[in-house]
Amino acid sequence: MTQTSTQHRPKVGIIMGSDSDLPVMQEAAAILKEFGVPYEMTIVSAHRTPKRLYDYAETAVARGLQVIIAGAGGAAHLPGMAAAITPLPVIGVPVKTSTLSGEDSLLSIVQMPAGVPVATVAINGSKNAGILAAQIIGASDPAMCERVANYKRDLEAMVMEKVARLETQQSQDA
Amino acid sequence: MTQTSTQHRPKVGIIMGSDSDLPVMQEAAAILKEFGVPYEMTIVSAHRTPKRLYDYAETAVARGLQVIIAGAGGAAHLPGMAAAITPLPVIGVPVKTSTLSGEDSLLSIVQMPAGVPVATVAINGSKNAGILAAQIIGASDPAMCERVANYKRDLEAMVMEKVARLETQQSQDA
Amino acid sequence: MTQTSTQHRPKVGIIMGSDSDLPVMQEAAAILKEFGVPYEMTIVSAHRTPKRLYDYAETAVARGLQVIIAGAGGAAHLPGMAAAITPLPVIGVPVKTSTLSGEDSLLSIVQMPAGVPVATVAINGSKNAGILAAQIIGASDPAMCERVANYKRDLEAMVMEKVARLETQQSQDA
Amino acid sequence: MTQTSTQHRPKVGIIMGSDSDLPVMQEAAAILKEFGVPYEMTIVSAHRTPKRLYDYAETAVARGLQVIIAGAGGAAHLPGMAAAITPLPVIGVPVKTSTLSGEDSLLSIVQMPAGVPVATVAINGSKNAGILAAQIIGASDPAMCERVANYKRDLEAMVMEKVARLETQQSQDA
Amino acid sequence: MTQTSTQHRPKVGIIMGSDSDLPVMQEAAAILKEFGVPYEMTIVSAHRTPKRLYDYAETAVARGLQVIIAGAGGAAHLPGMAAAITPLPVIGVPVKTSTLSGEDSLLSIVQMPAGVPVATVAINGSKNAGILAAQIIGASDPAMCERVANYKRDLEAMVMEKVARLETQQSQDA
Amino acid sequence: MTQTSTQHRPKVGIIMGSDSDLPVMQEAAAILKEFGVPYEMTIVSAHRTPKRLYDYAETAVARGLQVIIAGAGGAAHLPGMAAAITPLPVIGVPVKTSTLSGEDSLLSIVQMPAGVPVATVAINGSKNAGILAAQIIGASDPAMCERVANYKRDLEAMVMEKVARLETQQSQDA
Amino acid sequence: MTQTSTQHRPKVGIIMGSDSDLPVMQEAAAILKEFGVPYEMTIVSAHRTPKRLYDYAETAVARGLQVIIAGAGGAAHLPGMAAAITPLPVIGVPVKTSTLSGEDSLLSIVQMPAGVPVATVAINGSKNAGILAAQIIGASDPAMCERVANYKRDLEAMVMEKVARLETQQSQDA
Amino acid sequence: MTQTSTQHRPKVGIIMGSDSDLPVMQEAAAILKEFGVPYEMTIVSAHRTPKRLYDYAETAVARGLQVIIAGAGGAAHLPGMAAAITPLPVIGVPVKTSTLSGEDSLLSIVQMPAGVPVATVAINGSKNAGILAAQIIGASDPAMCERVANYKRDLEAMVMEKVARLETQQSQDA
Repeated sequence: MTQTSTQHRPKVGIIMGSDSDLPVMQEAAAILKEFGVPYEMTIVSAHRTPKRLYDYAETAVARGLQVIIAGAGGAAHLPGMAAAITPLPVIGVPVKTSTLSGEDSLLSIVQMPAGVPVATVAINGSKNAGILAAQIIGASDPAMCERVANYKRDLEAMVMEKVARLETQQSQDA
Repeated sequence: MTQTSTQHRPKVGIIMGSDSDLPVMQEAAAILKEFGVPYEMTIVSAHRTPKRLYDYAETAVARGLQVIIAGAGGAAHLPGMAAAITPLPVIGVPVKTSTLSGEDSLLSIVQMPAGVPVATVAINGSKNAGILAAQIIGASDPAMCERVANYKRDLEAMVMEKVARLETQQSQDA
Repeated sequence: MTQTSTQHRPKVGIIMGSDSDLPVMQEAAAILKEFGVPYEMTIVSAHRTPKRLYDYAETAVARGLQVIIAGAGGAAHLPGMAAAITPLPVIGVPVKTSTLSGEDSLLSIVQMPAGVPVATVAINGSKNAGILAAQIIGASDPAMCERVANYKRDLEAMVMEKVARLETQQSQDA
Repeated sequence: MTQTSTQHRPKVGIIMGSDSDLPVMQEAAAILKEFGVPYEMTIVSAHRTPKRLYDYAETAVARGLQVIIAGAGGAAHLPGMAAAITPLPVIGVPVKTSTLSGEDSLLSIVQMPAGVPVATVAINGSKNAGILAAQIIGASDPAMCERVANYKRDLEAMVMEKVARLETQQSQDA
Repeated sequence: MTQTSTQHRPKVGIIMGSDSDLPVMQEAAAILKEFGVPYEMTIVSAHRTPKRLYDYAETAVARGLQVIIAGAGGAAHLPGMAAAITPLPVIGVPVKTSTLSGEDSLLSIVQMPAGVPVATVAINGSKNAGILAAQIIGASDPAMCERVANYKRDLEAMVMEKVARLETQQSQDA
Repeated sequence: MTQTSTQHRPKVGIIMGSDSDLPVMQEAAAILKEFGVPYEMTIVSAHRTPKRLYDYAETAVARGLQVIIAGAGGAAHLPGMAAAITPLPVIGVPVKTSTLSGEDSLLSIVQMPAGVPVATVAINGSKNAGILAAQIIGASDPAMCERVANYKRDLEAMVMEKVARLETQQSQDA
Repeated sequence: MTQTSTQHRPKVGIIMGSDSDLPVMQEAAAILKEFGVPYEMTIVSAHRTPKRLYDYAETAVARGLQVIIAGAGGAAHLPGMAAAITPLPVIGVPVKTSTLSGEDSLLSIVQMPAGVPVATVAINGSKNAGILAAQIIGASDPAMCERVANYKRDLEAMVMEKVARLETQQSQDA
Repeated sequence: MTQTSTQHRPKVGIIMGSDSDLPVMQEAAAILKEFGVPYEMTIVSAHRTPKRLYDYAETAVARGLQVIIAGAGGAAHLPGMAAAITPLPVIGVPVKTSTLSGEDSLLSIVQMPAGVPVATVAINGSKNAGILAAQIIGASDPAMCERVANYKRDLEAMVMEKVARLETQQSQDA
């Protein structure tokens, strides 16, 4: 149905409501590639292709997916509807909108009724959606968990480099 | 599939995400009864019964419905998903929520993407949803249009009665 | 009174509070043309031409209109005042504002009191207002209803084309 | 047309969209009585009695009114529409609503377009609307201006009394 | 103390918290000039020149002012503090801010406690503040009231011109 | 360190900032019990016991936890700080607050910077946090995934029962 | 001028705009008493007693105050105006309001222009205002700093007691 | 650990969550330099370097700091976590964000629970954070207090210069 990014069977499905969401959602794909998590990425519109959404979510377990990442903006129904159909964990990415800055997207995704959660990340937080997918896989996969732990150490090292650069610059200014 | 309120084939379908929305949504039913518009009313949950939503919306035209009224709260996906599936006009009623007072419901319903409108009324504005359904039917049915016009005249008369009462009271106070 | 867009008597009246709303409101006209719905479009300001608003709304039924689409921004009173005067269904388009991004327009239009509904669409959702007008006409006109159904199928086809393009691109990247 | 509160010709017209706004709007009447400003108070609904609104606002100058105070809630169009019709200053009182706490009323009243101002006071700020009306009359009436100045001195005296009471209580607690 | 715009004694004082508010506040001056209302305009900062604010507001009546227009942004205290000191009507102009778009300015100005009203206009609504000042003067000055009525007629005429232009354009497009 | 709810080693750690959050957070515990997921529940305050938070999060992997559920209100830092320290997926529950209804809690939890996601659920959405934890475990545990799928079927059955009850009631009313 | 709470010269001045703020502001007094910081508490209204505010703030340094705590609601100008006049640090407490829950108070206090800061705490965060005053005194007073450090240790101990209680209860439930 | 800006031991520690906050936070450094307050400035990320945050806050008193200024954006946990660990007063600077304009940062910083205050300034109000730090030091240091008083006098003088310039310009325009 969709193109997989590696030879391996995809574990994460990245879907978005419109190709205008692609620049945001590609960050999820990029970080999953970095973590070595096989994924697939495609367009599934809750409002324009409701049947496709149905089929996508209903076959997700059978196709070997472990997590779905869904990004959408405005009255963003894609993550919640996917979560209504599949028993897999669904991560929702509220995409920033031109009128309400994504506050509409955020509330449409996070305020799900009891029984059907969506794991919501920050507005345009697609990179974090990818990391969260890796963490979910890592919850039962010590090697992946260790990769996430390493990633956190790298983040720390990057901050420390910036600390050093700032201090050098300040002592030169002094 | 659902119970109709009169012997006549229902023209308006009233659906809601949960039976906790019933007190709000019954106002739509009451005003439709007043206007003599046959309707049906049932529970269809986008998140808990996604297939039922599909079937309901897909068969709506064939079953003779002309308008769907859908009420939901929080991440309210019912009106938008119904509108994604049926070509009929869908009226959305944002139901007030205990945490965000229905601001979440309102944005989840009204901020639909281009191509799939939902005719949104005020938070808890179920009565107005019923009137709007009558107006939609009245757009091509002069008798119904006249009933709506009469209803407006009645509203005016009720205000004028209150005006008289207030003036009487003031002259007594003076 | 106003210029009609076709030889046919207009069925939809598009009005806006100011000519600065024209770029937004023309999308409603464009999609109505696509659906073959005759319309008229003019400027009616609730605040600067209140009498004109009165006359416009009061004569709407007699002139053969079936739906009014009204766009306005800020303290947006045009849709609600039109709805106060005519028994026709009125669709409100909240126009985005430079200070509050159209949140003011949205609340001024959607939060109508019981008795006088406005069918509100998304901020700047003028295209959807046009589609909703076609759906309202289609509620009692099977041919128009079928055109809306076809439009939905076209939307779906357009998404599927983008899906194909994205998959091609991904397999080339792989 | 409406009942005046004194034998004198009313200078201030207090109007409200619904009798449910009466408890809020009576505070304006009470403070005007305190200031000795003759007023009239009645119900005028922009949405249910649009013609009455027209007549009320159009005849206001001729009837000797100098200021109009208009209170309304939700999609509150009464103050703005009155201001559209009369050249008199119009004071708008946003009435608190059960769903959005009056934020909708406030934005619907204050965000008027260039050309048609409404002098907006706080949510439920009806008492201040009355004081503002007295200040507007006082702008050209030194005696009324002095009454407002005295009122401010009384406010100050009332605060100083509370200061004294609090200090007494603290010294007793010490 | 401040420069008056005409040989006549100023009737309206325009003050602003910072010279960065000048582009917004000059619209009030321009419309007052159009109405022939003598005014003065200067900078008075509640936070940086609190004593100057005191003196300005306290001497306003004696200097012949009838209305004060005060513009400020963010935690906008200038209008409310002026209103605390003078018995004259004070019009508040919430200036748009770079972070919160003037929502902070609006709430800081409009939500005054009982006893001390500020007549608040729209965010950046400085032109309307000038018109409102003319209306306040016109409340007891029939000639000024007539000028405001004429201004409203001019607004209407300008809209009708745009109506004509739009219709011409549409018939050419047809 | 904390009490486990079953004889089995806990897989989910439920933490909250204050015992006042207990009524909300117990719903997560209850649903985990229903799913047969061993959990532990305790109080860890980011602001009052920062070291305890450190130790809790740092030892989570070694103690066998697979998911952490963290609930907090206001300036809610507990979920984000736990996520900063552990490589495990952290689910954040924004607890409703008396002043801002949990909008502050929601933004404090969901708007995490790139690199450190928190899987946020609805305000007071503790039950959904428990379900999401089960889904995360189910991502690699087919039996648990099946239990989630069954839970969804039960939800659907419960809705259908309510549908039947509503229809019976309507036919009796008719 | 005001009553001091101890025999010692007050170091902290607690002021509030109205005696209705007393229940909130007394928490600041209570915690200062606990820290052994001498304080005074009185009513100073920016809007009703502007001169008293002037005098209070202008004499604060000379009277030995080191910190001012100012609480106010709505268009809350007291903290900012005090900060405009005194060089002392001013702590602002936004008091919860019945209409906008204190969002208006918060923005009116925190969004001060460059040059005149107000140290803002949470809505109704009067207790924290008292602690912050103690911390400010402790910045140069090691004994007071140690008292704050002890207070933090007590907070931690209180949490640990609740942890123990919760664990006992859980093991009894098990 | 960090670079100090003068030969003197720093009294104020300026920390920020990311080097992208540097342009905003440098204003705090600049004004402290102007006041002659020795400071240090470095990057400490609550989420990426949680241990470094711990160490920084825990050693702050011993290293001679009297105040910490912490700037952060989005789910801004740095100021609150620093305040949880050190007994020193912590000033929080909410940094403007691209999606929610800093409303998220503001609520994440100011809405701290009882026991752990953060002295919050305006969104991007870093300059005011520096002034507030000087005021805190000045609370017990008359020379610094005098410098703050002088700074206020300079602000006033700057406004008066602009007043003069505006008046000159107006008289030339006249």
